[in-house]
Amino acid sequence: MDFRAYVSVDKRRKAVEDNLKVNLSNIGNYSFDSKLASSRNCENMIGAVQIPLGIAGPLKIKSDFSEDEVFLPLATTEGALVASVNRGCKVITLSGGVTVNSQRIGITRAPVFVVNNQKEGKKFVEWVNSSFKLLKQVTESTSSHLTLLDIKSTFMGRNVYLRFRFDSQDAMGMNMATIACTKAASFIEKETKARLVAISGNMCVDKKPSLLNFIEGRGYSVSADILIPRKIVESTLKSKTESIVEVAQRKLMYGSLLSGSVGANAHYANILSAMFIATGQDAAHVAECSVGITTAEEIKGDLYVSIYLPDLVVGTVGGGTSLETQKEALSIMGISGGNNGKNARKLAEIIGGAVLAGEISLLASLADNSLASAHRKLGRGEKI
Amino acid sequence: MDFRAYVSVDKRRKAVEDNLKVNLSNIGNYSFDSKLASSRNCENMIGAVQIPLGIAGPLKIKSDFSEDEVFLPLATTEGALVASVNRGCKVITLSGGVTVNSQRIGITRAPVFVVNNQKEGKKFVEWVNSSFKLLKQVTESTSSHLTLLDIKSTFMGRNVYLRFRFDSQDAMGMNMATIACTKAASFIEKETKARLVAISGNMCVDKKPSLLNFIEGRGYSVSADILIPRKIVESTLKSKTESIVEVAQRKLMYGSLLSGSVGANAHYANILSAMFIATGQDAAHVAECSVGITTAEEIKGDLYVSIYLPDLVVGTVGGGTSLETQKEALSIMGISGGNNGKNARKLAEIIGGAVLAGEISLLASLADNSLASAHRKLGRGEKI
Amino acid sequence: MDFRAYVSVDKRRKAVEDNLKVNLSNIGNYSFDSKLASSRNCENMIGAVQIPLGIAGPLKIKSDFSEDEVFLPLATTEGALVASVNRGCKVITLSGGVTVNSQRIGITRAPVFVVNNQKEGKKFVEWVNSSFKLLKQVTESTSSHLTLLDIKSTFMGRNVYLRFRFDSQDAMGMNMATIACTKAASFIEKETKARLVAISGNMCVDKKPSLLNFIEGRGYSVSADILIPRKIVESTLKSKTESIVEVAQRKLMYGSLLSGSVGANAHYANILSAMFIATGQDAAHVAECSVGITTAEEIKGDLYVSIYLPDLVVGTVGGGTSLETQKEALSIMGISGGNNGKNARKLAEIIGGAVLAGEISLLASLADNSLASAHRKLGRGEKI
Amino acid sequence: MDFRAYVSVDKRRKAVEDNLKVNLSNIGNYSFDSKLASSRNCENMIGAVQIPLGIAGPLKIKSDFSEDEVFLPLATTEGALVASVNRGCKVITLSGGVTVNSQRIGITRAPVFVVNNQKEGKKFVEWVNSSFKLLKQVTESTSSHLTLLDIKSTFMGRNVYLRFRFDSQDAMGMNMATIACTKAASFIEKETKARLVAISGNMCVDKKPSLLNFIEGRGYSVSADILIPRKIVESTLKSKTESIVEVAQRKLMYGSLLSGSVGANAHYANILSAMFIATGQDAAHVAECSVGITTAEEIKGDLYVSIYLPDLVVGTVGGGTSLETQKEALSIMGISGGNNGKNARKLAEIIGGAVLAGEISLLASLADNSLASAHRKLGRGEKI
Repeated sequence: MDFRAYVSVDKRRKAVEDNLKVNLSNIGNYSFDSKLASSRNCENMIGAVQIPLGIAGPLKIKSDFSEDEVFLPLATTEGALVASVNRGCKVITLSGGVTVNSQRIGITRAPVFVVNNQKEGKKFVEWVNSSFKLLKQVTESTSSHLTLLDIKSTFMGRNVYLRFRFDSQDAMGMNMATIACTKAASFIEKETKARLVAISGNMCVDKKPSLLNFIEGRGYSVSADILIPRKIVESTLKSKTESIVEVAQRKLMYGSLLSGSVGANAHYANILSAMFIATGQDAAHVAECSVGITTAEEIKGDLYVSIYLPDLVVGTVGGGTSLETQKEALSIMGISGGNNGKNARKLAEIIGGAVLAGEISLLASLADNSLASAHRKLGRGEKI
Repeated sequence: MDFRAYVSVDKRRKAVEDNLKVNLSNIGNYSFDSKLASSRNCENMIGAVQIPLGIAGPLKIKSDFSEDEVFLPLATTEGALVASVNRGCKVITLSGGVTVNSQRIGITRAPVFVVNNQKEGKKFVEWVNSSFKLLKQVTESTSSHLTLLDIKSTFMGRNVYLRFRFDSQDAMGMNMATIACTKAASFIEKETKARLVAISGNMCVDKKPSLLNFIEGRGYSVSADILIPRKIVESTLKSKTESIVEVAQRKLMYGSLLSGSVGANAHYANILSAMFIATGQDAAHVAECSVGITTAEEIKGDLYVSIYLPDLVVGTVGGGTSLETQKEALSIMGISGGNNGKNARKLAEIIGGAVLAGEISLLASLADNSLASAHRKLGRGEKI
Repeated sequence: MDFRAYVSVDKRRKAVEDNLKVNLSNIGNYSFDSKLASSRNCENMIGAVQIPLGIAGPLKIKSDFSEDEVFLPLATTEGALVASVNRGCKVITLSGGVTVNSQRIGITRAPVFVVNNQKEGKKFVEWVNSSFKLLKQVTESTSSHLTLLDIKSTFMGRNVYLRFRFDSQDAMGMNMATIACTKAASFIEKETKARLVAISGNMCVDKKPSLLNFIEGRGYSVSADILIPRKIVESTLKSKTESIVEVAQRKLMYGSLLSGSVGANAHYANILSAMFIATGQDAAHVAECSVGITTAEEIKGDLYVSIYLPDLVVGTVGGGTSLETQKEALSIMGISGGNNGKNARKLAEIIGGAVLAGEISLLASLADNSLASAHRKLGRGEKI
Repeated sequence: MDFRAYVSVDKRRKAVEDNLKVNLSNIGNYSFDSKLASSRNCENMIGAVQIPLGIAGPLKIKSDFSEDEVFLPLATTEGALVASVNRGCKVITLSGGVTVNSQRIGITRAPVFVVNNQKEGKKFVEWVNSSFKLLKQVTESTSSHLTLLDIKSTFMGRNVYLRFRFDSQDAMGMNMATIACTKAASFIEKETKARLVAISGNMCVDKKPSLLNFIEGRGYSVSADILIPRKIVESTLKSKTESIVEVAQRKLMYGSLLSGSVGANAHYANILSAMFIATGQDAAHVAECSVGITTAEEIKGDLYVSIYLPDLVVGTVGGGTSLETQKEALSIMGISGGNNGKNARKLAEIIGGAVLAGEISLLASLADNSLASAHRKLGRGEKI
């Protein structure tokens, strides 16, 4: 059966049901505008999958832009996650709130060109460097929301990678960047001997864990930290500063180095995927965004914890953010839609705080060796 | 407000709506059993997020276990993805079907212990090696679905990591493994001088990209390949063998090496996250599972393409697989529920085929430089 | 000029001097047997380069095989290195000696074969696994000093890598392994459809830093540790336990992770290159052997330091070990020539102790911020 | 015995001989000025180790600065290496010469500072950025040969790494950079709340393989390429373009990715260590400099090969370059001593050409499967 033959989602689902003798009635239950969704978000649509949405907080966040308490929408099917983040939020808020630093790095796309040899490539790179203004005009002409920040070239053998970095305001911006680079690439092909091989040369680096993004950043670079008074460590985390610091050392540092991991953290991917799915981000970005480092130190008996997310790619417009449930999830944090880049940046900072909350709680659980029991209880339906 | 105070999902959501002055009516629209979900999958539940579900296929798969045609459920908000995978499936099926090899590696959990020094640690490792049978009894006593396959020890400084590897049949198995290792750890602490620091020492490696998992495998190790006749490359992929091979070389090989990426592929994370969300897997596993390598070669004019997924962690029971919509999505492939490990393995193999389909289609789009235009069209609501 | 035309080293050097109008009289001053050297170690020989040789120690070493004090020959041109290692030796010996653990992993060589597709490759790997005894006979027939330990296959796309692991007694063994694998490869080509592409497929991994060697080991895996009493830290290292531990944390752990380094140490490469050059090892192996991790912890005020060298490739026969000066350097440690593998293993353990000495001293210098002054003084000719 | 007690090298060696009952007469045979060497290059000196020196070439090199033929001094104990490089030189020169591109990146040193928290660290980084001119004065006041190019800050948790990048003319410059950073660090400590933890924070990254150096470069970034006519591939390399390209693909690309190697080359470390030892470089730098990528492509039947060395740290003054034999080795290439940075850069470019020669020859040997036989012959004393 050719699914594209069916004009409506319901007819298509019905066809699948009849054809495969299955019942997809729950998949048929959704409340967003199927016309929009099937044209913008998902081809061959037959319905929707429902992901349980939990809420955690309040989380007190202090940044250059705001100081307030937010609630976190978390879409997950993994028992214990929301409870764990919630506990982290409680600890952070009780301790006076998390400090978040964010930097807008921008979205990147890196087409790869081929030249005949080193001699020609050298000239090509020189041309690119001297043609920045032109390339800025060409790329920015494709969207009023796009600003070209810079182009970094990497030249090896016959291959030249041009890493375009854009400010895309409240949009995650990957598609806009692709469209802009495609126009730039045809311009470059006209003006030089270089030939475009692919509009993405894996130096972008989109949806793959890489040291390049980790070192140079992508999307937003977000850091967050907190000093948790010893008392709160003992009362709320049911642990000890020394134990948590030791877990961080032997697990996050030594364990990550020994396993050849990129970055060193406990479970960034858990918090990121739950927040991404809830807010209409592209869940595939978890592959690159989850690379980061958590540190824990003892300071006069108190517990200092920090997280580091140099590659956090998010947006509040476009993609899945306009779907009803995702829009509502964003509204819980008051950042649905566009706002001159402020909403996307606030989302990045909130996610930074959420990741810190998740790390604190899991490290404490491990120190307390309560991880398994927590899973045992929640995985089997008892309340914590 | 303390969300745990609320007995029902609806009351809790209502409280959030009143408290934050937001409307969460769509989040309130779901059809799974909220009692089960709120106890097993998601604490502080307020409802559900809806992810559009598309379908691709038929995909012809040939493996040691079966040879048939399947349809792929893909939950995504990224326009063009389902259409792209669907095109890949068409090419594969027209070319006679994908060959899939899979190997059950098993789920791993690696507690970290501390010893006083090298001298003591050496004795400890010797004790562990000589006590395998005992540790097998202890761990397997925690579940009738768990088989301990081996324990690999890594000893550095004062730290000893014991990587337990289990067969968990159709379950992804991370929680079962954690429970089993927790029991083993207390046994070990009783029998030796070693002290448990954390039940997970980041040598597991769970939900983090790592060379350890990439080299030794985790969950299932899945490979797949296909030889696409030149004619089909030109007619269906609208491209040329040579162009696709060049894209693979300059993008996947050189680009990935230059960017310090782990693995070398085009967009495994896209297909994995769409299949994971659709089938109730833990989306956070995309962080580790998306590490793999794609190869493309010309063989007498035809196009050979292969994918390599050494770390594919999936299951068909437990986690989110019992939620109604996810269960229905699994039923589309006829692998919902437990079946002596056969269903989970079949899911892994189908995902392998789906990833190959996605790689073929994207590489062709890049070679054809149609990526941007495809996004432009679909991102704006036109049909391909 | 064709250098191979010249029958003697002196005539060849003379030709270079006349031809390029240079004076190479010092290069002409050497005392080894030029006939042997020019045929075994270096083609187109024109003489020798002289590397200053210093001595450090005594270093007290405790291992399973021996407990004694040794002196370290270090060939280097970097001022401060020998003095630094010497200080480390003093601290170690004063503290009761270093404990060294070593494991003979063996030398590895990994030819790469090509097959037609996944289906064929799977059969090929099965054949290899079932033909181990045959391949053991074939490889061991090439040398009485070689024992095949195992073969690990990695299969991706059309490529199969067979990592042969050998015990080569006191020889480093790379050439022996290459010869053995070449014979095995022709046998394999006869018996199967697989075609040999290269006798080294970069999965060996020889002379390249890699996570594969780091995780699975190569040559010898050596660990060493010491507990340095606080008093000695203060008197001899002129530092404090806390300061050294902090340096280890912010430099070795965080700094190495942030820079995407493989391993985490201060300067293994310095000690390894000085010991390798002095004892006739292949200096190029520093590229792979210098990957390892150093840990430093405070234990009740005392300083615990450990080093970890999972990939230490050394020998006491063959290569440069038979050159006069190198032979003499080995004799300083009483391990020149073959001794059923005992000498090579002892060399590996001594190097482990030397690396620990070097790490302790540099970390203390950094903590004491005396690195620059030490260099300033020694780089300009004053005594420490 | 305390070696520092002995006033002369000979007395010290004699003491070792008597004490350990060994004969070190060959180690006692050297021709450099032992007073200078023992004060600048090597403490506790007892003599010298002799490394056979071979010569290869002529190698025709074309760069922005010069086009001429040079001879390569190679100090090694590994049979077959010089012959292999020599063959590569012949092929390159016959093919019209290698094109070399070089870029002076500069030497880097990255002290690590600690701050109290994110809030304070942010201010600190802002202060550093706004104080560049001051820091330039402070650092450059320590040497007339040093120019501060920039400072890159990395801030994570409580840790701030300042990567100072200097032009050090013809000197490798590590010691000069350390001295300059030490002065800068005390200035910074005076002006800010930040505290220096270590003058090297492993973000330098000195003598360790790292993605940071690979991505941002260090010392010199050198690329080189050549197009070898098919005829020469067959006549001189005794191989075929297709075979060499296949070896490059399955070994350098797939093999390196599968083994988690940094970079992808055949044996950069061999050529680098031989050239480094011959010319008085610090052999320990092989650990970082050997990270690079080799590409091989077929262009209309001819063979295109390129090498990429983004992290090549060399100098022609300081370190071991002033020792007599090393000075003579540099004179063979006409680049002994200082020359406004021109000599060091020329050395970097020559090494680039030498590395290309080595790669071409080994890839051809592998393609020809003659590696083992070459080793068999040379390792046992026969002429090629």
